[in-house]
Parts: sequence; C-alpha cells; structure tokens
Amino acid sequence: MFVHVRVITPITTRGFRKASDFAPLCSPDLTVSMTEIDTGPASIECDYDEMLAVPGTVAKMIEAEREGVDALIIDCMGDPGLRPGREVVSIPVIGPMQAGMHLAAMLGHSFSVVTVLKRLRPFIEDQASLYGLPGKLASVRAVDIPVLELEDDRDGVKRKLTEQALLAVEEDGADAIIFGCTGMLGCADAVREGLLARGYDAPVIDPVPTAVRLAHALVRSGLSHSKVAFPVPPAKPVVGYAMPARVVARRAAE
Amino acid sequence: MFVHVRVITPITTRGFRKASDFAPLCSPDLTVSMTEIDTGPASIECDYDEMLAVPGTVAKMIEAEREGVDALIIDCMGDPGLRPGREVVSIPVIGPMQAGMHLAAMLGHSFSVVTVLKRLRPFIEDQASLYGLPGKLASVRAVDIPVLELEDDRDGVKRKLTEQALLAVEEDGADAIIFGCTGMLGCADAVREGLLARGYDAPVIDPVPTAVRLAHALVRSGLSHSKVAFPVPPAKPVVGYAMPARVVARRAAE
Amino acid sequence: MFVHVRVITPITTRGFRKASDFAPLCSPDLTVSMTEIDTGPASIECDYDEMLAVPGTVAKMIEAEREGVDALIIDCMGDPGLRPGREVVSIPVIGPMQAGMHLAAMLGHSFSVVTVLKRLRPFIEDQASLYGLPGKLASVRAVDIPVLELEDDRDGVKRKLTEQALLAVEEDGADAIIFGCTGMLGCADAVREGLLARGYDAPVIDPVPTAVRLAHALVRSGLSHSKVAFPVPPAKPVVGYAMPARVVARRAAE
Amino acid sequence: MFVHVRVITPITTRGFRKASDFAPLCSPDLTVSMTEIDTGPASIECDYDEMLAVPGTVAKMIEAEREGVDALIIDCMGDPGLRPGREVVSIPVIGPMQAGMHLAAMLGHSFSVVTVLKRLRPFIEDQASLYGLPGKLASVRAVDIPVLELEDDRDGVKRKLTEQALLAVEEDGADAIIFGCTGMLGCADAVREGLLARGYDAPVIDPVPTAVRLAHALVRSGLSHSKVAFPVPPAKPVVGYAMPARVVARRAAE
Amino acid sequence: MFVHVRVITPITTRGFRKASDFAPLCSPDLTVSMTEIDTGPASIECDYDEMLAVPGTVAKMIEAEREGVDALIIDCMGDPGLRPGREVVSIPVIGPMQAGMHLAAMLGHSFSVVTVLKRLRPFIEDQASLYGLPGKLASVRAVDIPVLELEDDRDGVKRKLTEQALLAVEEDGADAIIFGCTGMLGCADAVREGLLARGYDAPVIDPVPTAVRLAHALVRSGLSHSKVAFPVPPAKPVVGYAMPARVVARRAAE
Amino acid sequence: MFVHVRVITPITTRGFRKASDFAPLCSPDLTVSMTEIDTGPASIECDYDEMLAVPGTVAKMIEAEREGVDALIIDCMGDPGLRPGREVVSIPVIGPMQAGMHLAAMLGHSFSVVTVLKRLRPFIEDQASLYGLPGKLASVRAVDIPVLELEDDRDGVKRKLTEQALLAVEEDGADAIIFGCTGMLGCADAVREGLLARGYDAPVIDPVPTAVRLAHALVRSGLSHSKVAFPVPPAKPVVGYAMPARVVARRAAE
Repeated sequence: MFVHVRVITPITTRGFRKASDFAPLCSPDLTVSMTEIDTGPASIECDYDEMLAVPGTVAKMIEAEREGVDALIIDCMGDPGLRPGREVVSIPVIGPMQAGMHLAAMLGHSFSVVTVLKRLRPFIEDQASLYGLPGKLASVRAVDIPVLELEDDRDGVKRKLTEQALLAVEEDGADAIIFGCTGMLGCADAVREGLLARGYDAPVIDPVPTAVRLAHALVRSGLSHSKVAFPVPPAKPVVGYAMPARVVARRAAE
Repeated sequence: MFVHVRVITPITTRGFRKASDFAPLCSPDLTVSMTEIDTGPASIECDYDEMLAVPGTVAKMIEAEREGVDALIIDCMGDPGLRPGREVVSIPVIGPMQAGMHLAAMLGHSFSVVTVLKRLRPFIEDQASLYGLPGKLASVRAVDIPVLELEDDRDGVKRKLTEQALLAVEEDGADAIIFGCTGMLGCADAVREGLLARGYDAPVIDPVPTAVRLAHALVRSGLSHSKVAFPVPPAKPVVGYAMPARVVARRAAE
Repeated sequence: MFVHVRVITPITTRGFRKASDFAPLCSPDLTVSMTEIDTGPASIECDYDEMLAVPGTVAKMIEAEREGVDALIIDCMGDPGLRPGREVVSIPVIGPMQAGMHLAAMLGHSFSVVTVLKRLRPFIEDQASLYGLPGKLASVRAVDIPVLELEDDRDGVKRKLTEQALLAVEEDGADAIIFGCTGMLGCADAVREGLLARGYDAPVIDPVPTAVRLAHALVRSGLSHSKVAFPVPPAKPVVGYAMPARVVARRAAE
Repeated sequence: MFVHVRVITPITTRGFRKASDFAPLCSPDLTVSMTEIDTGPASIECDYDEMLAVPGTVAKMIEAEREGVDALIIDCMGDPGLRPGREVVSIPVIGPMQAGMHLAAMLGHSFSVVTVLKRLRPFIEDQASLYGLPGKLASVRAVDIPVLELEDDRDGVKRKLTEQALLAVEEDGADAIIFGCTGMLGCADAVREGLLARGYDAPVIDPVPTAVRLAHALVRSGLSHSKVAFPVPPAKPVVGYAMPARVVARRAAE
Repeated sequence: MFVHVRVITPITTRGFRKASDFAPLCSPDLTVSMTEIDTGPASIECDYDEMLAVPGTVAKMIEAEREGVDALIIDCMGDPGLRPGREVVSIPVIGPMQAGMHLAAMLGHSFSVVTVLKRLRPFIEDQASLYGLPGKLASVRAVDIPVLELEDDRDGVKRKLTEQALLAVEEDGADAIIFGCTGMLGCADAVREGLLARGYDAPVIDPVPTAVRLAHALVRSGLSHSKVAFPVPPAKPVVGYAMPARVVARRAAE
Repeated sequence: MFVHVRVITPITTRGFRKASDFAPLCSPDLTVSMTEIDTGPASIECDYDEMLAVPGTVAKMIEAEREGVDALIIDCMGDPGLRPGREVVSIPVIGPMQAGMHLAAMLGHSFSVVTVLKRLRPFIEDQASLYGLPGKLASVRAVDIPVLELEDDRDGVKRKLTEQALLAVEEDGADAIIFGCTGMLGCADAVREGLLARGYDAPVIDPVPTAVRLAHALVRSGLSHSKVAFPVPPAKPVVGYAMPARVVARRAAE
C-alpha cells in the first residue's frame, strides 16, 4: 500500500524548510511531499502568528486532499489548523505536538517539552490539558532562540537543547523529551547522545519525522480522525477569503 | 469614571446584531458600542468558521484600542480571538464563554451550557478544560437551531431553551445555566421564569450583557489580562493580511 | 439602577476597617456601607477563628437583606459564611477569594495567592479545589505578618508583598497575583508597580474592591447565587443563638 | 492498651442518640462514650445548621481531651468541626464522611453515598473533592426522609436505603455504599442483605461504628492528624463565645 | 529498513491465535511473527488470569529480543507484562490498550471501549487513569461473551459489537471506539460499517493490527520506551522461575 | 471478637522478616502470624521483581483463607497481588501502600513517600493515581539503600529517613510521611522524633503495623473489599502453576 504524506509548513518564509529535509523518511511505500502556505506570518511564535497561519494552512489541506494525498502533517508544534482542518478534510490530519505528547506518554511516565521561547509555556500547558494529558507534562523548558535563528548556529542549538533536556530529566522528573519547535528537526540524535552520556536512556521525539511515520501507520490501518468529533462545516457565505472547495465525496460513501 | 465598552460581533452578516441591542446596558458612566467584522464567515458554528473570523476580529480589537475604547467583548461563545487579541491589545478582552463559565462556577455548584447545535459539545467541553474548570460543567445541551435562524421564531427559541434548561437541572445536576450562543441575547428572563415556574431558582446567564458589566467592573478596578501570560507578539513580516498597527505605548508606561 | 453593597468585616476588632476605606469605590449609582460582626474573634487566621466568625457574619447578612441592601461582600479571604449565608439570603453573597480566584483565572494562565501566614497554604489550596480550579493555583506565598499587625508598617507590608509577588512570577510561574488577606487593602498599586519595574505586567487583585465592583455588575445583570445549589434551610429549633429572622419573600415571587 | 473514644453528636435534640447505641462496639480494651452539644441546631441538614453546630462541637472536643479521652468521632456526615477541632486538640478527630470515603475507596473501585435529602448532593460532591478523591464518587442518592424522622419507620428507612443502594450499584457503577447520615446507624446489615439477595457482594459502610474502630486502630498505632496541616490557633480575644481552654501540653513534649 | 514485529499471545490455549491472522499486515519491509506463552491461563478475563500470564509473557519478550526481533506487541488488552517487560528488554514493548487509548484520544474527543465482560469496567477505567487519560474515556461497554467463545459465532460478535458501539456514540458521547479484547480481531470493518450506516463516521480501532503498525513506525523512528522510566532490574536470586537471561548489551552502547 | 491477621512477606529471602517483628502488635483479641512466599524474588525493587512475587503471594492468600485467617496484609509497598488476591479470597486483603496513602490523606493535607530507591518514583506516583488520590502526593523521596541492605546499618537508615522526611516537609509541602518500603519497619518513632525536634508534629506511618490495626478494625466492622469490584475469576485451565484451590463458600452464603 503506497502512502503519500504531505507536510504543510505553515509559514511564509521560503527556504526555512526544504523538501530534502524529508527525503530520509521516504521508502518504496512512502512518499513525503511538502508545501508552505501562501498567506500568513514569517514564523509562528505566539497565538497572533498562529491566527494568521491557520486559514492558509487549512487551504493547503483542502488542496492536498483534492490532489489525492493520503495524510497531512502540520509542520508546527502549535498544531495550527488541527481542528478546522479536520472538519474540512477526511484524510488524517496530524498535529505533531498532539502526536508527540501521546507517544511520549506511551513511552515513558512523564515528558518535558523543550521549545524555543519561554513565553510558550502557558500555551503548551494548555495543549497538554486539551489533548487529555493534564498529569503527564513534567515541564516546559526553552532554549531562548527565535524560530528563524534556529538555523544560524546548529551546534549551539543542539548544545542548548541537550542542556535543557538534561535539566528536564534531573530536576523536573521527565523521562521523555519532545522538541517544542519543528525547526529543531534533525537534532534528536545529538540530544539523545547527550542524555546517554549522562546515563539517561530516554526517548527524544523529533516531532515531524515521528508524525510522518505515525501517519503512515494510520493510513495503513484505515484510521482517520473522527468525523463525529469534527463534523463537516455547514455551507455559508464568507467574506475576504477564497478558500478552495473541499472534497465532497465523504468517507461514508467509500 | 466613564467607561466605553466595545462589542465586536465576529461575523459578516449585517443586521444580525444591532447597536440598539445594547442600549439597555448603557448608563451615565457606561457606553456600549458595537461593530461587525469586515472579513469572515456569515455565522460561527464550528472551528472552520471560527478560523475565518479570528483575524478580522483581532483587527477590530486593535482599532478599538487605538480609538480609546476601554474594554472589548467578543460577541460569540467560541471566544474567537481571545488569545491572539490579548497579545496585541492592553485593554481587557473578554470572552463571554470564559466569563460566563467562571461566573456560573461562582454562583452555583455546577452549570450547563445550552447552545445551538449538538456538534458543539466537544468544543465546549474543551473550553471548560482550557479555562481551568474541568469539574464544573454538568452538561452541554442544544436547541438544534442554526445561529442565523435564532431570530426567526423568538418564542420557539425561548421555549426550547427553557425545555433544555429544565432537563439540565433535573437530569444533569446543573444549578446554573449559560447560553451557548450570543444570538440568544434577551432570552434569559423567559428561561429563568420557566425554571422558577418549576421551582428552580437558578441563575441564567445571558453572556454578552453579563460580560459588558464585568468589563465595566474590571476597568473600574484597573484590571486587565496578564501580559505575562499574553506577551506582545514579536514583529515579523506577514503575507496576505493588512492588520492595523497595534498601540505601542504599553501599560508599563502609564 | 442604584446599587447598595454592604461589606461585612467578620471580626470584632473595631477600627481595623473604616467605612472610609470604601469611599473611593462609591459613585452616583453605587453606595458601599460596612459593618463588623458582634460576636466572634479579633481576627481570622485559622479555621478555629473562622468557626467563631461565621454565625455573626451570617446574622449580619440576614439583617442587611432585611434593610434592603442589594449585595454582600465578606471582608475576609477565608470567605467565612459564604455557603450558609447563601442559604439564608437571596441577594448575592460574594466571597472575595472565590471571586478573586475566578477573575485571576480569567485574566491569566495561573495565579498565586500572597497571604499573611504560611500556615494558610493547605486551606487556600483546598479553596482552589472547592471552587473548581484545581490546576490554576501556581503557589501560595506568605509575608509572615499577623493580620492585626498589617497596619503597623504599611511600607514594609508593601515591600514584602512585592518580594513575594516577584518570586511567585519568577519561580512559581504565576502570571496574576491575588492578595490572601483583605487587610492588604490598598497595596495593589505598589505591588503592581514593583512587578512592572521588573518587566512583569501582571494583574494584582485587591480582593474587596474587586468584589464590590463584581457585586455591582451582578446586581445590574439580575444575577445571584443559585438557590438550587444553596436551598433555604428547613426551619428547626436552635439553642444558644439568636439569629435574626430571614426575609421570607422569595425571589420567585418577584 | 485501653482506648477511650468519645462520640460527639453535634445536635441539641436529646434522645436522638443514646449511649447504648454504641454498647456493641465496646470491648475490654475499648470504651465508647457519647455527648451531645449544648448550643446548636436540632439536626443538621444544610450548611446553615452546620455553622450553628460547629462551635458547640469543638467545645466538646476540647473538654474531651481535657478529660483524657483518646480519640473523637463527630457524629454527623457533614464532618462539622473537623478542621477547627483538629487545630485545638492533639488527639485524633475523625470525620465519618472523610473516613468512610477513604475506606470505601480502599475496598472498592468507586462508591456511592446514600443520604437523607437530595439537597445535600453538591455538599457531598465537594467533600469528595476536598478529601482528595475527586474520581471515586460514583453518585449521591437520597431516601428523602428528614434526619429527625429517620427513627419513625425504621423498616421503611431500611427498605428505601436498599432501593437506592441497588440503583447506585446497577445504574451508577458503585461497588461500595456509604450511608450519608449517621442517623442511619444500624441499617447496614439490612442493606447488605438486600444487595446480596440481588447478587451484589458490596461493602456497606455504617460510618460511626467504622469510625470508632478506625479511631481505635489509630490510637494503637500512635497516629493522629498532622499538626503541620492543622497548627494551633494563635491566642486572641473572642466576643460572645465561652470556649473551654484547650490542653496546652503539646504532643511534642510527650 | 526491515522490521520484525513479534506478537506475543499471552495465553496457553493453542489455535486461538494463528500466525496467519497477521499475514495481511506484512509487507516487504515488515514481518510479523507470533508466539504463545508456555505457562499461564487458557484466557485472560481478570487480574488473577493476568497474574498467571505475566511471567510467561515476559519470558517470551526476553527470548524475542535475543532472537533479534525489533518490537513486541502484547496480544491482550490488559497489557499484561507491559511494565516488567519494558524493564528487561530495550526494544519497544507495546500494550494495545495503551496504544489504542492514546490513538483514540488523538483521533477524537472521547472514546469508548467495547469489551467482552462487564466485570472489566473498573480495570479499564484504571488503565485510562494510569495511562494519563482520565478524562477521555466516555464509557466501557461489554458484549457479554467470554474470550474463548468469541470465535464461535463471528457474526453474532460483530452484531453485538456494533450495537454497543452505537450506544457508546449515541448515549455516552463517544466519537471513537476501541475493542476491549484482542480476540475481536478483524471485526473493525463490520462495526465501522454499522456506525456509518447510522451516520457516524467514527474510527474503530482494532488494537493489535494498529499496534503492529505503530511499532513499525516507532522502530523506524528509532524510538523505544524510556529506560529512565523503566530501568533494568537489579540482579538477585529468584526461586521457582527459570527466566531466560536478558540481553545485556544496552542501547547506550549502540 | 478474636481476629487473626496474616502478614504475607512476598519475598523468598528467609530471615528478613521474623514472626517476632509483629509480636508487639498482638493483644488478647488479635493474633498476627506471618509467612514468606515459596516462589519469587529475593526482594522487590521493580515491576519485574513484583511480577515474580505475585503468584506465590496469591497462593499464600488462598491458603490463609482456607486456614481460617481473618485478614491479610501484603508485606510490600508495591502492594503485589492486591487485585488478583481480592478476586480469589473473600477476607480483607490490605495493601500497605493503599492503606497508608488513604490514612495519610485523612490525617493531613498532603503526604510524601520516603522509599528505598529513586527508581520507584514513577511507580509510586502511579499508585497514587490508581488509588484515587492524584492530588495528595507531595513527593517521593529515597534513601538510596537497596531493600536487603536496610538491616545492615539501622541507625544510618533512620538518619537518612529523617533527613528525607524533613526535606519532604520543608521543601515539598508534605505534612505526613509514609515509609515506602516495609523493610523500614520500626523506624517511625525515630523519624517522628527527628521531625518534632525541628518543630514538625507530623504523622509518620509505619505501614505494616498500621495495616494490621486497620485490618483488625475492618474485620470487627464486618467489612471486606467489594466483590462487585473484584469478582471471582472464571474457572479455566492453567499451565505451569499449581495454585491452591480457593475457598468456594462465598460470603453471600454466610
């Protein structure tokens, strides 16, 4: 069963994410494509940025379903567009924070999220509540590097991530680590090695690759989000947005 | 101390809400003005609609602060724009569901929300969790009338609201009622009478008028949302939205 | 609509609270009166003190309703008499801790209470649970000054409150502050300035003034506590207390 | 080790409780004495009644400790005076609802409370939260008989208790039953038989006898409530109450 | 990357599970093998059965790791051996209930488990708590068929599963369904069709196939359970069990 | 009423526990006997050890009921065999951690567990959740001494327990202490004195003696665990275990 997963990078900065970033994930039965959004912010670091990213992100979801894509990954740990996107498409939409938190809760006893900026702590604590995991979040820690500067000094990013991951394990009681920004892609091995060097054999979740593999597993299992929880929106006039038309043939008709 | 509260109706349907709806709330020290949004959906009945309403709503918040308005009420029980709006303005932004839930929790032991459509139950349960009140929501009930049809048969709406409110009290253990759609404005007296007629002296919260008065109280008390929880967004390029510039003189400078 | 709010100071020390304390709250449509209790302790610093304060406090509630007062504020953060008082009167009874916690939860992500004595921590944690907000209390901190000494060195009190509020924000993750004793009345501006000086723009809730304004808002909205949650006590013989007769004309008859 | 347990019946009705009620609990190493309060209500059926019962109840606790009693049981499921009493005495003070709920949570998966009046549901739900057991209370059910009428038709009481206990097991998922009023003393065998007759082998907790035995176990184990959680009240003037002086030699000096 | 997943069926009944059951899951990069345990019960329907199944299950886990298997699936919804197994092996051990609950929580708002026997409700509720998802379990329902009779009337099983799934959605508010016994393997399509026929497009999780695919995804992602949460057992004498020696080369040495 | 309590020490090390350890608990109406298990590990320090201890422990439970013992105490804070044991016997089975946690929650506001090894923290946090007390556990602390070395330097153990108990009170907010290993038997007085010397009058629960007295109280009260929650296992073939036959005359027939 061949599966096509589309990663939607919900920012308008070009070149931050490259299609080649996902090449290592591909295999004979899995293709990963990517796209950025056409309208929205340069990066997402707060609720205001997210608000501006969501309509463009959902537009890309609808287009992807129309193209025959099998599953969608939102390339941001705020999971922007997760809920409205699930209302308008039938193929699985995966938020990497939601997926990362549930996988971390499966693999350990409690996890920490190491993110870019301290200001995101309340937001991430709310995500844990919303996703039904109020007692599993040990802490939120930050490397204090803005999203678009994550590329500037990759070694420095890895070193700071490792420092915060160690503190999460030693001081906060975490036994699994989730990256809190998808811009940290590719740093998991370094952080894991840093933890192992101190004797901590803990999973370090690099959210987007993990979400891609989870999407693959869901598609193969014939699973998608519940349309009882995320029913199709009622048709109505909209001013100021030219959203693509959603695919109307519903799963029920399959 | 004169207070100017602005109600922002986050839909593009004109005439659904009239400035005169809020005239009864005004007093020598309180003016209530209103505005609708310029871009967005005709009504809000799901996350997809809300996504389209938020940018326009937040734009109106920024404009209102610039005009010297003292406090803002979002005229929708999904509280669209509550978080991003609080990031970009310093004046209090009140979500009527958040305010209604906290007031109901203060006035009774547990409350029910009676809303328009059954599909909103998961969304409203998530709001209760997010607002920190996971154990206070007795139930979500619906009258099964779309938002824009609420005006068509006002007596029918009141009758159905009363029926569901009675069931909430008798079957679900609620002792306070919150309307789950701001389009139910003005129905509280009828529902309260219906409950009293059956012997239930329970508060029935008409969210927008209550939020206006709460806003008045907050402004007089010198209180607004925490900028530690909702810090100002970092400046960055945005494509496709012409958001008004936010007021930059911060509260700290007052 | 003219509103008369009565503040009941539930201690027998005279002069601790003065009617003039509330003069700044009054306006053409709001009068604030006050009274102390006739039987009870000199101050409230534990459950034993509170037990002795409650019957006298509830007696004053009944008298106030009889006089035509519109709403009642209990002038103690233990909210003594909140539940029995709500059983015997129909006008809104507001506990400033309950109101303060719900408002703080509305304005921020999580709050701390800064109170007089460390011994009150378990009590305040129980209040947060009881009021339905188990996850919103970041911490309880104390200035370690007994209630009746709060007046002795007002500047020292403000300095210590500011110190503890800063620690609450920096170490405990609070983004809103509630005073844990109504004897700290009038210190909010100083604490807020102290926080702003360190870059924290966080609400500081001075509970009694805030509760007075909230009472005003509730009365204007026609809201009071639920009599389904707090039904009228059955009549029965009582030995040793001469409680005033409660007003019998019920809200239902209005 | 000889143990003297005192049951304090916190009502002023004489004859409702007889010393002989506790005779079956006595053994060579256990004496159970009882007393009623001197000031307070005829029975306790709401928070207002409880407020009037507490000072008299705590006075009896202090007197009992002075007499050399080893442990105290409050003879009411509202646990009136539990917290202030623990502040002023060092010997164990047991609230039968608190003890009953914890024992029921130990013996089964979730329990129901079958009480006198429906109006007590919110109060009992709050007790479960306060005692740290928010998820263990399956339901609160009522026989709808006022406290002082429980003696009138003992067979009727047993039949109604059995009916409600069966509904608790079959409809609410309870697997243990706690009586919600100490006036139901002696009905446990009948209810347990009624459940067994339907195939349900579930514990039925008769709270006061169980609390007496638990008190015995605690005294023998050298355990009492934590004075860190319930520290001694600060000395201060009190108006209108002639509370007995508490025993000042503290446990620390033992 | 070739992945070998081993399913361990923790019962001693031969023929209940066949290797061919998992043939449809295999692909060029995924092999699924299976084994039953050598010591233990004929089926697992309670904690007593599970206790007898665990040592044999964990023995099979150690053997599988020694053989070079990449991941392990426990073929029982009680997840027997999940924790001790994770202590003694480094390859991922997946409990299908834990995995199923987290996936269901990702795909919907709340889920129900439809299992074999009613008696399992408390056990499954405890699993939801233990796995960190206390608020996501809508209900536990049962078809009332013992495990080893599930094969007797496959159509009857499917019909009863569909009935209970429909009730879960309509009465309990579930929007995702998890089978509560791995003996229901292969019934998901029928139940899903039954739900769709009534208009409910909800995911129906067939736990073992889903767990196999999830294991595949984890192995490809280089993820396993946290050894900080599940550290290696200290060596010590054991009487009465001949457990195989665990693989000692630790992940840290890779 | 004469009561015979059996303590089952679920390890195969002989001499670690002596019958004389429990002599001080005996009285004219209470006999305490003990036994070790025949198959299982030398000590219990992880889930793997526990798995190996459970079948032997449950075998001893069945034998004890057959002998006419009145109640059973599991002599390990992991409470191994609590659930399967309750399924196969009708006499009360007490897990000392479950009992200790509920008693600590009754006597204070929040408790800490001081155990042998740090690695047990996640396990003990899960016990608190499972027993329904998610908010009452202040912390888990460890003395870092393996179980079988607890006897080597008794004074050192007491000193380290006291150190950790003090930190639990001063840094974690605990006001009651539970020993996390039954091998700490007899150390409670020393720890309590150490706390008192620093001014903390907090209960220190020595779990097995306390559980014995609680068992005595339960038997006298006619209470045992709920067979609705822990129903009798269905009969079925078992391979590899020679479990004794359980007593079949059920309580219902008494």
